[in-house]
Amino acid sequence: MKNVKCGRCVKCGREYEAVPNLTNCECGGILDIIYDYDYIKTTLTKEKLAARDDRSMWRYRELLPVEETTPNTPLRVGWSPLYEADRLAKELGIAKLWVKDDGQNPTASLKDRASAMAVAKAQEAGAKVIACSSTGNAASSLAGNAAAAGLKTYIFVPSRAPKGKVAQLMTFGATVVSVQGSYEDTFELSKQAIDKWGWYNRNAAINPYLSEGKKTVGLEIMEQLNWEVPDYIAISVGDGCTIAGLWKGLKDLYAIGFIDKLPRLISAQAEGCCPLNRAIANNEDWYPMEENTLADSIAVGVPRNADKALMAIRESNGIVVNVSDEEIMAAQKLLGRTCGVFGEPAGVTGTAGIKKLCEQGKLPKDAKIVSVVTGNGLKDVANAIKACGEPISIPSDMDLLLKAFAEKGICIEEAE
Amino acid sequence: MKNVKCGRCVKCGREYEAVPNLTNCECGGILDIIYDYDYIKTTLTKEKLAARDDRSMWRYRELLPVEETTPNTPLRVGWSPLYEADRLAKELGIAKLWVKDDGQNPTASLKDRASAMAVAKAQEAGAKVIACSSTGNAASSLAGNAAAAGLKTYIFVPSRAPKGKVAQLMTFGATVVSVQGSYEDTFELSKQAIDKWGWYNRNAAINPYLSEGKKTVGLEIMEQLNWEVPDYIAISVGDGCTIAGLWKGLKDLYAIGFIDKLPRLISAQAEGCCPLNRAIANNEDWYPMEENTLADSIAVGVPRNADKALMAIRESNGIVVNVSDEEIMAAQKLLGRTCGVFGEPAGVTGTAGIKKLCEQGKLPKDAKIVSVVTGNGLKDVANAIKACGEPISIPSDMDLLLKAFAEKGICIEEAE
Repeated sequence: MKNVKCGRCVKCGREYEAVPNLTNCECGGILDIIYDYDYIKTTLTKEKLAARDDRSMWRYRELLPVEETTPNTPLRVGWSPLYEADRLAKELGIAKLWVKDDGQNPTASLKDRASAMAVAKAQEAGAKVIACSSTGNAASSLAGNAAAAGLKTYIFVPSRAPKGKVAQLMTFGATVVSVQGSYEDTFELSKQAIDKWGWYNRNAAINPYLSEGKKTVGLEIMEQLNWEVPDYIAISVGDGCTIAGLWKGLKDLYAIGFIDKLPRLISAQAEGCCPLNRAIANNEDWYPMEENTLADSIAVGVPRNADKALMAIRESNGIVVNVSDEEIMAAQKLLGRTCGVFGEPAGVTGTAGIKKLCEQGKLPKDAKIVSVVTGNGLKDVANAIKACGEPISIPSDMDLLLKAFAEKGICIEEAE
Repeated sequence: MKNVKCGRCVKCGREYEAVPNLTNCECGGILDIIYDYDYIKTTLTKEKLAARDDRSMWRYRELLPVEETTPNTPLRVGWSPLYEADRLAKELGIAKLWVKDDGQNPTASLKDRASAMAVAKAQEAGAKVIACSSTGNAASSLAGNAAAAGLKTYIFVPSRAPKGKVAQLMTFGATVVSVQGSYEDTFELSKQAIDKWGWYNRNAAINPYLSEGKKTVGLEIMEQLNWEVPDYIAISVGDGCTIAGLWKGLKDLYAIGFIDKLPRLISAQAEGCCPLNRAIANNEDWYPMEENTLADSIAVGVPRNADKALMAIRESNGIVVNVSDEEIMAAQKLLGRTCGVFGEPAGVTGTAGIKKLCEQGKLPKDAKIVSVVTGNGLKDVANAIKACGEPISIPSDMDLLLKAFAEKGICIEEAE
């Protein structure tokens, strides 16, 4: 990899050769992949990128830590749509809002970006099996991307993972272990099993390449905005890997001169589980917290990538915002009604955060904001049903329809 | 619309001006949109198409019945991935197989293509409200595409529609009427309500433009195959509109000289509800049938677009195949395991049909086949859970993990 210099520990600064099965530093710190931006500048230009036919995360290969000979992974990951959300912006009273719908990925979440990278690196390592622990989305994305590439998977999920996610990954042929305990318990068991059997490790807080997959969401946002930098990018935060990846992508683009400034990050967590935002708000170290929110994908009481996430938020002069489950459910309906985008609870938490910050007057009226929706609402229908209530239910009879509409206060003008 | 001549009744041949709110012929027959292919040939070339940046169904505007001034609809519909399914082809013993994953659409089904067209035509008609009846997917796709465009929706679903689909469309802000009865009962009530209130009609068997949206799946398949025509295209069949649309797209391309032959269609229905395949197999007219299958999206006992569908199958010298619910569930796992594609039951019925035809020796070994997956498995998790069984469930303990693997007969070689 001519574009990569090494893996460097974010804690102690020790450097490691960027071999495919790189894991944490001996000191326990997570590694950051260090690029040779001078070299990259000689190989990648905006014009070259614009002419590229590939509409997937692999269009950014010059900025990704893979060998030139490594094939693109089979599923079409990335290049999710960035929608102009003018009606939503108007409702919130902000100048300009875009919604990046990353639920439009093969297994319906942003995690596909990391899993595709894991599959590529596992293939470089000559591995036939990949394993991970996950609250659900990383699991199903790994199972899907690995299945498409012909690799076997062992996957550890906490028992609270929604059935939809579990069914999805079992359909992909994964061997699934549902761990009766917290995400922390799940992570520990997966670690022991990976250590014992030497599987390729797709835990995003252990494998430094995964953030590099996730960063493609930031690369895409900027290319889709024609390199015009927004004021803020809002995203939900759990383990910390995703916001760290987003920030890495933005910094890459700044380093190679594709953008001339950096946006501020909005880190949105659930009130019931916000150890990282608490650390920022109180300007202190993070410490564990209960996992008390319906937004299962970000219910992470012991964030495994706290260092990178906190650095990202602080470096960007970011804003933290915590939202209640009710605010998350309201944001789900708001996004659906105004944008036609159906996000899972954790997926819409960034939007819920923007709404709250607007109500609190903490965002300037002329702000240009991108909200990343990290997963599809179909992943967790039970909570969507709770949020929506039940439809009108009647036999096929016009009189009963009129009665039901009247009872619900639905008034229809003819040819409305 | 310079490219459109008229709407012509498929039953009596009567022609109508192609106004935006066109519905059925006075004789009750459904209309077909007739194009001026000579004109289209002067405006569209393969080279022009290849240079086009738009990766959505709207890249084919010259072949679509919309005014030049009508804007593209907001959600990114179409240009779903066409995957080379080499491992699956090998398992089935056929030469070449591609999977068109139309679950990768904004609301996760092929129906987005028709709904986007409905939204475009409703806007041309100056309508503010669209209505439809649907087994679920047309409903959620209409609700999503209409919400994104700022239009209101009234939607009628049979009470058996999976909760995921209902939650999705309610999140999009639709007014939903769940009809206690069959799809036929649901359709009838929607028709009465539409007649009463003059809403724009998105029922695919009434509105002739919707097939024209659906046909883009055929246009894309051929462009993605670089205009090299496969021997067969397999697709699941319910109401009949989708297979009719697919065929229309293929015939369009043949008419303008983009392809030099036509593939044969494989019409796959559920054994428990196959009125159209029965009509073909017995060379007779269709008549109603019970709706007895878990593949809810194709559980249509009274197909509303029988005429166009039967014509399509017959014209293509097509093959009909009926599969059991068990075969559908097996195909779901097969696609997941070999391709990383998670389809809903109706979505994988085409693949189940191919598998059955292969086992029966009815397809030549050197056949090149495309299988269209029409909807995402996340739409109907309950059935996926039935198909998959439960995961291993244990506390976070290595000894218990070893025991569970042993009980399940899972044998792991180190660094496998």
